[in-house]
Amino acid sequence: MDKNSYDVKVEEELLIKLGEHIKDLTSSSKILLIADQNVYDLYKDTLSQSLGSYFEDIHVFTIPISEDNKTIETVTKFYDFALEHKIERSTPVIAFGGGVTGDLVGFFASSYLRGIPFIQMPTTLLAMVDSSVGGKVAYNHPKGKNMIGAFYQPKAVYIDPLVLSSLPEREFRCGIAECIKHGLLADSNLFDWMEDNRTAITNQDPSILSAFISKNVAIKASVVMEDEKEQGRRALLNLGHTFGHAIEVTRGYGVVKHGEAVALGCIAAAYTSAQLGHISQTDLERIINLFKDFNLPTKASLVASEDLYRAMTHDKKVIDNKIRLILLKSLGDAFITDDVPKDLILDAFEFVSE
Amino acid sequence: MDKNSYDVKVEEELLIKLGEHIKDLTSSSKILLIADQNVYDLYKDTLSQSLGSYFEDIHVFTIPISEDNKTIETVTKFYDFALEHKIERSTPVIAFGGGVTGDLVGFFASSYLRGIPFIQMPTTLLAMVDSSVGGKVAYNHPKGKNMIGAFYQPKAVYIDPLVLSSLPEREFRCGIAECIKHGLLADSNLFDWMEDNRTAITNQDPSILSAFISKNVAIKASVVMEDEKEQGRRALLNLGHTFGHAIEVTRGYGVVKHGEAVALGCIAAAYTSAQLGHISQTDLERIINLFKDFNLPTKASLVASEDLYRAMTHDKKVIDNKIRLILLKSLGDAFITDDVPKDLILDAFEFVSE
Repeated sequence: MDKNSYDVKVEEELLIKLGEHIKDLTSSSKILLIADQNVYDLYKDTLSQSLGSYFEDIHVFTIPISEDNKTIETVTKFYDFALEHKIERSTPVIAFGGGVTGDLVGFFASSYLRGIPFIQMPTTLLAMVDSSVGGKVAYNHPKGKNMIGAFYQPKAVYIDPLVLSSLPEREFRCGIAECIKHGLLADSNLFDWMEDNRTAITNQDPSILSAFISKNVAIKASVVMEDEKEQGRRALLNLGHTFGHAIEVTRGYGVVKHGEAVALGCIAAAYTSAQLGHISQTDLERIINLFKDFNLPTKASLVASEDLYRAMTHDKKVIDNKIRLILLKSLGDAFITDDVPKDLILDAFEFVSE
Repeated sequence: MDKNSYDVKVEEELLIKLGEHIKDLTSSSKILLIADQNVYDLYKDTLSQSLGSYFEDIHVFTIPISEDNKTIETVTKFYDFALEHKIERSTPVIAFGGGVTGDLVGFFASSYLRGIPFIQMPTTLLAMVDSSVGGKVAYNHPKGKNMIGAFYQPKAVYIDPLVLSSLPEREFRCGIAECIKHGLLADSNLFDWMEDNRTAITNQDPSILSAFISKNVAIKASVVMEDEKEQGRRALLNLGHTFGHAIEVTRGYGVVKHGEAVALGCIAAAYTSAQLGHISQTDLERIINLFKDFNLPTKASLVASEDLYRAMTHDKKVIDNKIRLILLKSLGDAFITDDVPKDLILDAFEFVSE
């Protein structure tokens, strides 16, 4: 293992063992937990028992966290709390919550005292299979999502599938959107497996849930490991995201959820791929149907396509003013291109507009 | 050269060749220059000529920069400007100014779109020999200096010794303090050489200025290369800084200049080393005299030593509440210790108090 590698554990009842696992990573007797208030309230007894057995000095900061306060103001609250409680460079910080929590706490961890040890304990499916692995941390700027951030790897990611039982259904579906995306861009077997197991997945059947999460973490991790700084293959993970971010930013963050925007974005990308002759109409329909099966949107009420296109040109992945898109070569294989005609992009937005 | 290595050029009239050099590093036709207003005004014609020959799309943002506005508010102005001007992930940003400029622009570069190419063009001696090399970037928090930051390496550092001619004398002396520090911690030959050449250095004699800067950059670079993330040897560069930061923070940033605080801090550390029997009284006097020769303070009006000690415990280098100090084993050789008795630390503050 090189110094940037880290452990991703997926295990039922991991929450109870959290303190024990973290103690193996650090000699610090002090620990900082920053949590989304809502999910912290559900698990605070287990958390304090788990950490209390292994750490002497436990500092807990909680606030309700959502896309709306994914801002520098929230990160600044973390800085203020950490300085007030004399959190040191060697003190680990745990992010306990969804993707926004991980992104905000991760950016805090990357920049507080120029970086402190960072541990992810994601509590949403989206965060488990996507944002908690890979080291991308960020907050939003009024002009765009995740505009300010860093590449900062966690020391460990601890995933307890059982916490998903308390996740609202809409949030669970949003995580599914990224899982379908993983199948589309890297693994047609995962796509097939999700088609076959759609009911068990929807029901969070314990017999398959850990395996389902692990399969997705493995895809995310393998792509990221090849390309930590997003200069090549990692960009494939942005399948559906350039379309999706334009949808999110024009509707206002939070109105359309990120996973829903990704579902719409993946369909727009699949449509574009079909129009360019890379995938068949049958594949396009299979893709649309799988999103539908998981009750994800396949069309939505959007602003004019020209306005969506303009929003796209603000995306941080734009290079020399060219819009770079991820498209499908086939189901299970993606590629990057920057010469899709504007008209086809407008057309793809129409395809997912109600 | 590995991907984290970078070029440090020290050369007279480099400013005129800036555009040419940067063009070798990038395929971008766009460039962002963020500069301290005061120094930009002196060199703007040369800069725009130098960059204009090689870049089509030049965006310049200038404001007066000082320790007083080394804050998130200033970094936010950079973010706003960059987003407004559609600065992309591949657009290089040049920091033109002193150490504060480099630190702020560097933090901006590390976090804008999760990191854009960063070029240092330091215009003060302090920035040339110290902060521009090594990748430490940061801004201040009301509770402490450089509390928020990152380790982010520049793509290149370009040093033109001729720009020092416009530097106020007090600023030049502040840079000298870090050069004496380099001699003390790593190279007794440099210390001797500075004693021998004190007049030529003070007069910025062109025959020795480039060599003087290069010697110091080499020491800084060699220590940093061994230990990029400041977990071992790099900490030696903090000689004088734990004492010094306490002095700065209790006097208010900017009242005592950083280099002046480092001078006082080095003397406090040398005094402590002498009291512990590591260096002789003669060495201590040589050290004090060299600071004096360059017109740097060897005593100052300070707050009570107990208050200075308390400020020290807020330093981000404090581990598990122990104050870690860099002391001298001999002149030219430093070591790290965390068991200096509190009374001796108080005594050292007294030694540099008027």
